[in-house]
Amino acid sequence: MIKTDILIIGAGPTGLFTVFEAGLLKLKCHLIDALPQPGGQCSELYPKKPIYDIPGFPEILAGDLTSNLLEQGKQFQPGFTLGERAETIEKQDDGSFIVTTNKGTKHHAPIVAIAGGLGSFEPRKPKLENIEKYEDKGVNYFIKDPEIYRDKKVIIAGGGDSALDWSIFLADVASSVTLVHRRNEFRGALDSVEKVQELKLLNKINLITPAEVTALHGKEFIDGITVTKDGIDTVLDTDYFIPLFGLSPKLGPIGNWGLEIEKNAIKVNTLDYQTNIPGIFAIGDVNTYEGKLKLILCGFHEATLMCQSAYKILNPGKKFVLKYTTVSGINGFDGTRKEAPKAVVKAIG
Amino acid sequence: MIKTDILIIGAGPTGLFTVFEAGLLKLKCHLIDALPQPGGQCSELYPKKPIYDIPGFPEILAGDLTSNLLEQGKQFQPGFTLGERAETIEKQDDGSFIVTTNKGTKHHAPIVAIAGGLGSFEPRKPKLENIEKYEDKGVNYFIKDPEIYRDKKVIIAGGGDSALDWSIFLADVASSVTLVHRRNEFRGALDSVEKVQELKLLNKINLITPAEVTALHGKEFIDGITVTKDGIDTVLDTDYFIPLFGLSPKLGPIGNWGLEIEKNAIKVNTLDYQTNIPGIFAIGDVNTYEGKLKLILCGFHEATLMCQSAYKILNPGKKFVLKYTTVSGINGFDGTRKEAPKAVVKAIG
Repeated sequence: MIKTDILIIGAGPTGLFTVFEAGLLKLKCHLIDALPQPGGQCSELYPKKPIYDIPGFPEILAGDLTSNLLEQGKQFQPGFTLGERAETIEKQDDGSFIVTTNKGTKHHAPIVAIAGGLGSFEPRKPKLENIEKYEDKGVNYFIKDPEIYRDKKVIIAGGGDSALDWSIFLADVASSVTLVHRRNEFRGALDSVEKVQELKLLNKINLITPAEVTALHGKEFIDGITVTKDGIDTVLDTDYFIPLFGLSPKLGPIGNWGLEIEKNAIKVNTLDYQTNIPGIFAIGDVNTYEGKLKLILCGFHEATLMCQSAYKILNPGKKFVLKYTTVSGINGFDGTRKEAPKAVVKAIG
Repeated sequence: MIKTDILIIGAGPTGLFTVFEAGLLKLKCHLIDALPQPGGQCSELYPKKPIYDIPGFPEILAGDLTSNLLEQGKQFQPGFTLGERAETIEKQDDGSFIVTTNKGTKHHAPIVAIAGGLGSFEPRKPKLENIEKYEDKGVNYFIKDPEIYRDKKVIIAGGGDSALDWSIFLADVASSVTLVHRRNEFRGALDSVEKVQELKLLNKINLITPAEVTALHGKEFIDGITVTKDGIDTVLDTDYFIPLFGLSPKLGPIGNWGLEIEKNAIKVNTLDYQTNIPGIFAIGDVNTYEGKLKLILCGFHEATLMCQSAYKILNPGKKFVLKYTTVSGINGFDGTRKEAPKAVVKAIG
């Protein structure tokens, strides 16, 4: 059982900034995310794209914003359960919650902050009869650790940025990379498309287009696939099949937690972004209230007010005085201290 | 008469970010600030101090945050009335407002956003009988343009960072710099104190401590001061006298505009941060509502929601769809365009 003060569901920008604001109040956080890495959409969907409306950044790449937020919160030592989806919640007699993931990992916390963005990102799966059978047995919808593909035969399917970028990356790792796409045309960053073209000419990527993967083979573990091109089926040996057809966000199991839902979002008050269930908050794109804007900067504000309220719940009756980081500095849970250079009082003779 | 869409009172971080958010909605902004430069407290009180709680910045100097916000908004070409304090407001028959400063500059706008922070920063004035007579006639409480002191005799009074830093700066500009302080000890950044010590030994700063300026002389314009040290009065010739005794924030004339005030702050609703007077909003540290936190990041959120509401007031009945900068890019009022690199659709042969 993982125990923490604030259990954050969703490790996107809002969830990551919550770690920092909670840390200032000496509250510990643990984050659950269905994606294999922190950052939410910013990392998974558009890490190399610029965002122009983060206050103070005339331009920042979404991936860099994620790194910065991780850096900003790291002295508060957040825990992570990644690649798992929060599935069930049970309220305990003392008002605390146990949240269990789809893989059975259990988390216990007095406060739950749902920072789930548009929901958990579920991979779009190709319509192949027995694909579930091979999931995690050679079929992967995400690439968590590229090292598992070292010196293995890999077949990737898809025609967008993910398929292009992972084909390029794995060309140097796997023993062979085959990229299958149902069209000749790929859609992605110009330099990615050109790099795949170049690797194809160097025989480092085997390109099969226009074609589709139409069957999977193997006993326990996958050992081959059928590719259909111009009506002709070919069976190819492989160690891994990685369909990268994009992600589709789903509110998912959270929708069944008894929370008040409106237009696929969780209703909250604007005092502290608490839901209809005391102790459960919803912050960032996943929540809704009158005048709500689905902007990252609004999530930051919501996270901050939410942490204040969590502090009051966890420290009833304790007087709290807002401290400014410039004045008070920051004491990390890891023993680090950040502070502004002190003024000196010194005679000049 | 200066005309704009949103007249922002206060050019601190919240006011500056309002320019950007308003610009995304094609609304023009003009800012009034009593200080001689934008940035509010961040520029005036602690430009070299780090802030740790701006989301996405593990650490940023307050002065750099100001520069970044100016850069972020500059394509929306904000206007500035600096070094003047918003004094009176008159509601027009059509619901718009005319705001006049203490120097008589008039501004006309349908929307007023008060982003006044802790209020307008009024200099703490030394208790000298006739000091008002010499204001702007040799007595300056702020340094707007250091060039006016070139090859002039300057006397600075004070013992903090401002007095130290301006003495150092002007040592290279003025024909002579005299620094008067009532104690031998100065309070400031270590390197500033050491630099003043060094310049004193080089005879580039004339230091008189412990001493006080006790009288000002001159017909129209100041031409001398009396310094009292150890009970002995000395008259010194000078072209300028610059007392830098700090600033003290005052809500000031805004307190008489008929706005609902609570604990020296302006009451707003949390839907759009509008005050009790329709068309006048209050955002950032100057406002108050249940759960209010005086944090810069909260001002950013409030500014953003406020701009949406201003847009609706100015474009009644027009349907508005929130656009994401990453997807839609930014069209500056100056003809510039920022946008994410476009994906290509390209065959690989």
